[in-house]
Amino acid sequence: MVPTKLVDVYRGRRVESSHYGHVAVVNAEGQLLYSAGDPYRVTYARSAVKPIQTIPVVETGAADYYELSNPDLSLCCASHSGEAQHTDRVLAILKRAGIEDVALQCGTHIPHAQDTYKSLIAAGKDLTPLYNNCSGKHSGMLVTAKFMGETLEDYYLPDHPVQQRILKAISEVTDFPMEKIEMGTDGCGVPVHALPLERLAYGFARMADPKSLGEERAKVVNRITTAMMEFPEMVGGTGRFCTDFMKSSNGRLFGKAGAEGVYLIGDRETGIGIAIKIEDGNGRAAYPTALKTLKQIGLIEEEQINSLMHHYRPALKNARQENIGELVPSFTLQKCSSAIVNKN
Amino acid sequence: MVPTKLVDVYRGRRVESSHYGHVAVVNAEGQLLYSAGDPYRVTYARSAVKPIQTIPVVETGAADYYELSNPDLSLCCASHSGEAQHTDRVLAILKRAGIEDVALQCGTHIPHAQDTYKSLIAAGKDLTPLYNNCSGKHSGMLVTAKFMGETLEDYYLPDHPVQQRILKAISEVTDFPMEKIEMGTDGCGVPVHALPLERLAYGFARMADPKSLGEERAKVVNRITTAMMEFPEMVGGTGRFCTDFMKSSNGRLFGKAGAEGVYLIGDRETGIGIAIKIEDGNGRAAYPTALKTLKQIGLIEEEQINSLMHHYRPALKNARQENIGELVPSFTLQKCSSAIVNKN
Repeated sequence: MVPTKLVDVYRGRRVESSHYGHVAVVNAEGQLLYSAGDPYRVTYARSAVKPIQTIPVVETGAADYYELSNPDLSLCCASHSGEAQHTDRVLAILKRAGIEDVALQCGTHIPHAQDTYKSLIAAGKDLTPLYNNCSGKHSGMLVTAKFMGETLEDYYLPDHPVQQRILKAISEVTDFPMEKIEMGTDGCGVPVHALPLERLAYGFARMADPKSLGEERAKVVNRITTAMMEFPEMVGGTGRFCTDFMKSSNGRLFGKAGAEGVYLIGDRETGIGIAIKIEDGNGRAAYPTALKTLKQIGLIEEEQINSLMHHYRPALKNARQENIGELVPSFTLQKCSSAIVNKN
Repeated sequence: MVPTKLVDVYRGRRVESSHYGHVAVVNAEGQLLYSAGDPYRVTYARSAVKPIQTIPVVETGAADYYELSNPDLSLCCASHSGEAQHTDRVLAILKRAGIEDVALQCGTHIPHAQDTYKSLIAAGKDLTPLYNNCSGKHSGMLVTAKFMGETLEDYYLPDHPVQQRILKAISEVTDFPMEKIEMGTDGCGVPVHALPLERLAYGFARMADPKSLGEERAKVVNRITTAMMEFPEMVGGTGRFCTDFMKSSNGRLFGKAGAEGVYLIGDRETGIGIAIKIEDGNGRAAYPTALKTLKQIGLIEEEQINSLMHHYRPALKNARQENIGELVPSFTLQKCSSAIVNKN
């Protein structure tokens, strides 16, 4: 099925570019409620499944043994901006497990926080994997390997027990067979997992309403999603969508971005999960799509949308910092069943 | 008409994302020869029409009066990386006209050349409009205004004679009525021009084979496109597509990128023009599309394609600098007439 137009990019009065993509809205019983484009599009979840990837950090006992606090767990779910609040915390997590930050194998990139980058350059220092947006997740992987007595130097490889536990957790939470999950390599070197969008939405529905996962895992899942919503500044950073979105949602909605235009949301109130893939991979369209989806199915208050207007209809600015256009979500979801969703 | 899939982005063995868009191939007689998607899609040309925007710099007499060399004219057509070779030359152009670089109104952004940015930070200096990728074009606008005795402080506004001359030149070269050209504001603050893609392709066909523009304008056009092809390092910078593409084409093919996934090409040998718009605005898909288009219609030698393989099928790298995927052009152009194009 072809992707549907989701977001128009206006420059002046004219649409300059458009983003197409796919949306799946699924409840915790696994029913597909709404969709746009192809809800079964097989999609690399990328960093959007970090909350699921954090399950083994807790379930192995590593989180308790190394006293991972809620902000620490939130950081394990993060694609962070590389602010001091993030990098200091990664170092602290590793230190409690007696691990040096040179053990991080996530590679280097320029962090989202320009101030961090400028400070490093001004101090004559090089970028290190500590500043990689995935260093929180990698610290969770490392402390788990350490706690389990596994090798540290190859924790990022697909066959390592750390990655095998993650694959198993994703398979179980999404109820999708491990052998059908296609693998690739992420921007930070670890495996990425491709699943039908509808299965990713179901996974986040169950992260929101985890009772079908069993009592023990439900506790773990609630601990992780609570950590994200209590400390949303860890998940992204200053001004980032994930952070602003969860800050404004009063413990109801949690969301996580993935590279190449992926966004996953769970709604604790209704147990609904949402999965979004922008076909062209551009994240700028994922946030308006996420908010428009929530608005259309009545999962978000008008007040919350208003407080997030700069993410819902973000302005296009030029190098002179003039507003010269905006992004406007332009789609209508298709209803897929007669289930009543809107509780508002 | 809907956009056509042009480029697949592979991660491992699976397509992670896809780019859709439009292509128009037109000859200097104005015949549409090939297309993909909607060849009439109205498209902001953005920086891709800088070679046309440079015509008034020469035609007014400003270029000769201020002794603009071929590298200078090439820089007027540039979206440069902000390397010293670019910024030094912008300063030299302005200096010959007695203009300070504070007159540049293009705003600031982080330049493509990370080394430039790092040097500025290390020296405790701020970004200035000099480092904007459009500062070459703006220097051309400023010296033209100075030569014509026009105001300098508002040269970027749509009503200024500098911008009116540019609008007229675009209208004439593309043979599209001025009043039908829709306007918006560019990333650097000056007007942008929206025209059907097929008209942009025709414009570049006439830049490649300018005889129908009259003898005087033909000379000007040849001077500009020769400048670009003789000094392609001015048009982009180290490792940039425009630069590498023209370096490898031995004075035959010239091309210019525009923001939001626009690419225009002229072929001096056949007088064919090509216009590309990636629907989602992502430039990463424009270069494989450009090379695939040239390859399909036989305007590029196998040897040249081979030397540009890193632009034709660019590798996807992760933060560990591992190759983890690639971009692959995936379309076939539709033939629109029986004209024989392939001279090879």
